[in-house]
Amino acid sequence: MSDDTLKIQLPEDRIPSHWYNIAADLPVPMPPPLHPATHEPIGPDALAPLFPMALIQQEVSTERDIEIPDQVRDIYRLWRPTPLYRARRLERFLDTPAKIYYKYEGVSPSGSHKPNTAVPQAYYNRQEGIRRITTETGAGQWGSSLAFAGAQFGIEVDVYMVRVSYEQKPYRRALMETYGARCVPSPSTETEAGRQILARDPNTSGSLGIAISEAVEMAAQREDTHYALGSVLNHVLLHQTVIGQEAMVQLEMAGDYPDVVVGCTGGGSNFAGIVLPFLGAQLRGGPAVKIKACEPAACPSLTRGTYAYDFGDTGHLTPLVKMHTLGSEFVPPGFHSGGLRYHGMAPLVSHLLDQKLIEAHAYVQGLCFQAGVDFAKVEGILPAPEATHAVRGAIEEALLCKASGEAKTILFNLCGHGHFDMQAYTDFFAGKLTDDAYDADALAASLSHLPQVA
Amino acid sequence: MSDDTLKIQLPEDRIPSHWYNIAADLPVPMPPPLHPATHEPIGPDALAPLFPMALIQQEVSTERDIEIPDQVRDIYRLWRPTPLYRARRLERFLDTPAKIYYKYEGVSPSGSHKPNTAVPQAYYNRQEGIRRITTETGAGQWGSSLAFAGAQFGIEVDVYMVRVSYEQKPYRRALMETYGARCVPSPSTETEAGRQILARDPNTSGSLGIAISEAVEMAAQREDTHYALGSVLNHVLLHQTVIGQEAMVQLEMAGDYPDVVVGCTGGGSNFAGIVLPFLGAQLRGGPAVKIKACEPAACPSLTRGTYAYDFGDTGHLTPLVKMHTLGSEFVPPGFHSGGLRYHGMAPLVSHLLDQKLIEAHAYVQGLCFQAGVDFAKVEGILPAPEATHAVRGAIEEALLCKASGEAKTILFNLCGHGHFDMQAYTDFFAGKLTDDAYDADALAASLSHLPQVA
Repeated sequence: MSDDTLKIQLPEDRIPSHWYNIAADLPVPMPPPLHPATHEPIGPDALAPLFPMALIQQEVSTERDIEIPDQVRDIYRLWRPTPLYRARRLERFLDTPAKIYYKYEGVSPSGSHKPNTAVPQAYYNRQEGIRRITTETGAGQWGSSLAFAGAQFGIEVDVYMVRVSYEQKPYRRALMETYGARCVPSPSTETEAGRQILARDPNTSGSLGIAISEAVEMAAQREDTHYALGSVLNHVLLHQTVIGQEAMVQLEMAGDYPDVVVGCTGGGSNFAGIVLPFLGAQLRGGPAVKIKACEPAACPSLTRGTYAYDFGDTGHLTPLVKMHTLGSEFVPPGFHSGGLRYHGMAPLVSHLLDQKLIEAHAYVQGLCFQAGVDFAKVEGILPAPEATHAVRGAIEEALLCKASGEAKTILFNLCGHGHFDMQAYTDFFAGKLTDDAYDADALAASLSHLPQVA
Repeated sequence: MSDDTLKIQLPEDRIPSHWYNIAADLPVPMPPPLHPATHEPIGPDALAPLFPMALIQQEVSTERDIEIPDQVRDIYRLWRPTPLYRARRLERFLDTPAKIYYKYEGVSPSGSHKPNTAVPQAYYNRQEGIRRITTETGAGQWGSSLAFAGAQFGIEVDVYMVRVSYEQKPYRRALMETYGARCVPSPSTETEAGRQILARDPNTSGSLGIAISEAVEMAAQREDTHYALGSVLNHVLLHQTVIGQEAMVQLEMAGDYPDVVVGCTGGGSNFAGIVLPFLGAQLRGGPAVKIKACEPAACPSLTRGTYAYDFGDTGHLTPLVKMHTLGSEFVPPGFHSGGLRYHGMAPLVSHLLDQKLIEAHAYVQGLCFQAGVDFAKVEGILPAPEATHAVRGAIEEALLCKASGEAKTILFNLCGHGHFDMQAYTDFFAGKLTDDAYDADALAASLSHLPQVA
């Protein structure tokens, strides 16, 4: 058999039995979340109105390995283990001596990595007797994933969808509704937070920060309702570590280990999912790995944001968390990677950057889409717009290898397919995608309003 | 581990090494194709302007096992072997004693079974030095699959897309263009066949029969250009037998064998792909299997068509083939399953029905979409509109088992995901999908014009 295609498929008994918690291996612990009024560290109880206790415990745990419940692993088996590919055709196309591998999360029911955390979140809520979950979604990947997970456990799901994505991606909404969820464009008139924003700016395109405020507000009002977040929080990043753990076993089967690991970052969860197991191994004395976060130039929290305590939402309903932030008032331009539109970055990922354990790079969307088209032509899989940032970052590393003659091993996470995002590709071909930059004045103004924490 | 999910995954060395050719096992051979003027059987040479000789030989071969070239198997490995699932959640939802399995072809780059034949067709054309392939497409599943395959072998692809689908499914077009193909709404003004149709009916919604005429006409004009068909022909059905062969091994691993095998039929290829290996085993003395073709009530070639010699296209450029046909002038209503809009049925599938080796049933689209929504909620995967006909057919069998108390084993082919077809689901939820019936008068008129073959 010819061997252009190297797909490394694990048997299903190799789905990880535990999530990997990097808190056990961090040389410096993360700064704690603070109460928004007192600026004192908050305890787990403060989160109890929004999350089941099992998830709150995971949020603050320092245990290295956290067991994955049987019922969660059972649903994981619908699409996990996901394949790892060696991108030989891409290597030839780039004429690089580098070896490029990618982990493909697009085989899940919603076409992205998001069900990895949606399923355990729905599971733990169900265990606590919760009947309804509210959430926000950007591109719709998270909303449709939680809708799928809710359907599996008989939980109602209400999704507040960033307005610009609600309009650009009606088909993600249809998918949520097929799974039985209710989908509301955000900001909406259903919440106090939404009504305030609409009063100030009736034509706002919305943002994840606003949608979070609405979902949190609705969950806080009802006993039988909790809130779920698709990224940012420690327990969400924890659930995604199945990606990197599987990739590590698959690379071992290929007799390889990465020199560079690349992921795209919006809230930080797919990035954390692929990199944390490798970073943890490094922290425990294993091989050093260059870890590269790829973010959109239009929403550059890691490369242009400030590392400071800030609110997770625009309505200031959440605790203060220390993160790389553009300020909770920052509204990014309406570029297409809806999943990368968050004003902040996961506190854990922010901490890793602050500790110089990872690097961050920002890319304009035109270059990312071109990378996505090149990738689709040679490798066959069409990446989601978000994932094209990781493709672009990996190609950049491979081209550096071409220049230097080094045969590095590059691993990246292809976090989802782009079958729901064809309008963005259509716009790209029509030359309609400008390389949106953020508004520097708006960023400065937003950052000037960061909460003052001693 | 809880075991609600039973996914049977084969190692990649179990991708079949050969395609299975049922011509070797047919008790009565198929009627030959005829020359449209002389009504004499035509020889392989007559097809040489359109197809490479390797495919023409497969078209007429009676060899049971035809080797799959290494380069084709290598590309198959991007998504094959595909998973087989036991639909335990669907069984519970239906409260049926039946065991339901489904083979899932939606994991391919274009999200359907079509690349199984697109890749070998591009390969054999490339071997013969062909630079360009023309084709038609209905829903776009075939066009995007051939575009993907063409990109793998450096072949230009021109796709004539049925106008109603071109308009309803702009995103399939974007996918074809991402893979580098050119996509033209059919009927077009590029061809004599298209211009004639447009002169008669400028507002026609198009049909596969018309689009085939255009693609054939363009291919016949140029030495370096061939034509490719995504269904209907023997060699296309042959290539799809990887589906059923894998399913047979996977069921064996589960310790099972089907009593009933179900597939949806448009041109007949995904249906043939899943059923032929089981039917072949039966013909060679193996267990008897009930085989059920599920077609749309709006385009009911197997259940309402005539078994007669007819043209494969509307422009009467093709040889005459004996098949269940609605007449080559039949234009079905613009219902959503664009992949099931063909006026005829594969001659091989038609022959099997005529020989009473299979059954056929027609379903209205409302019931099919409801089956698709029910399936998505319990099993997680959203079926393509075409595939919902197979889901519906399988559910019907399971409900028969519930009534009779029989614990039959049902296998069906879930030939593609519906991520490109969300407009159809949106219309279904909005109550806009009428249960389109065919126009009985138009059918009678169309059938009255069948060519008279002695």
